[in-house]
Amino acid sequence: MNVTTVRLMGIDPGSRITGYGIIDMDGPRSLYVASGGIRTDSSQALPERLKTIFEAVAEIVRLHQPTEVAVEQVFMHRNPDSALKLGQARGAAICAVVVAGLPVSEYAARSIKQAVVGNGAADKTQVQKMVALLLHLPEPLQADAADALAVAICHGHTRQTLQRFGTAAVLARRRR
Amino acid sequence: MNVTTVRLMGIDPGSRITGYGIIDMDGPRSLYVASGGIRTDSSQALPERLKTIFEAVAEIVRLHQPTEVAVEQVFMHRNPDSALKLGQARGAAICAVVVAGLPVSEYAARSIKQAVVGNGAADKTQVQKMVALLLHLPEPLQADAADALAVAICHGHTRQTLQRFGTAAVLARRRR
Repeated sequence: MNVTTVRLMGIDPGSRITGYGIIDMDGPRSLYVASGGIRTDSSQALPERLKTIFEAVAEIVRLHQPTEVAVEQVFMHRNPDSALKLGQARGAAICAVVVAGLPVSEYAARSIKQAVVGNGAADKTQVQKMVALLLHLPEPLQADAADALAVAICHGHTRQTLQRFGTAAVLARRRR
Repeated sequence: MNVTTVRLMGIDPGSRITGYGIIDMDGPRSLYVASGGIRTDSSQALPERLKTIFEAVAEIVRLHQPTEVAVEQVFMHRNPDSALKLGQARGAAICAVVVAGLPVSEYAARSIKQAVVGNGAADKTQVQKMVALLLHLPEPLQADAADALAVAICHGHTRQTLQRFGTAAVLARRRR
């Protein structure tokens, strides 16, 4: 990593599999670092499954040392029971990164698809294909890893836009 | 605490207030140790609120050193959005105790009310009154703290019953 590079982590929490993806943003370029899925054993009790998610996310943070984290925002869910399960997994994953002192940004699914595919209503396959294309991967990744990389890419684009606006604002102030 | 005393922690997670209650079980007697509510600032972003819950629960564990934890099981919820929020808070609270190495038991609301009030369909006020009565408190506590103490009392009763059955089973095996 050179000095202008930032390492971003995306997380796609799920009650069965929590996807994660790490990228380096070097200017406008996104470079693939790592990705995968944290699987929990459905035969285990809930506290054990949450511990698995928390400890795996903490370990990935220690290993790859991202400096910023992004998670998909969840607005609605099909039913209360699955919303509760997703919420618990999401709580465990987010806790692991906030207690490591990392800032977490949330993005709506629509914004993520817009940033990666250029269409807020894109389907999962399109996201998988575009993530592979943007990160120069030989083939599309599994959905959980691809979704996690997508939210990392979305965060990368957003922070770059903010920086550009920030720089423009600074230049505008200097010109006055 | 004497050697036969066990210190139990009950948690009643909520998206706004997470109740906690600590009791010492000395034989059949439950003794009040501490209780309260962890309030999160609704103007803060979700990751910050989850951090508040995680760190407060971890601090209470460090301070009071319970050896076992109990949480109310959630089966159904009114709507997906509140189920998601509750799930996130629940995930943060449970993570804080499991990463401290403590075993967590879950109890259905009906079992908790049955153990404390003697009626699985008891209302909140009855639970508050019975918790105050059982723990010799001068007046009922706030609902979140009372609910957390109720789940700790329920766990205390359950583990005592298990121990009694366990002892009976051991004696039965010895008699053979």
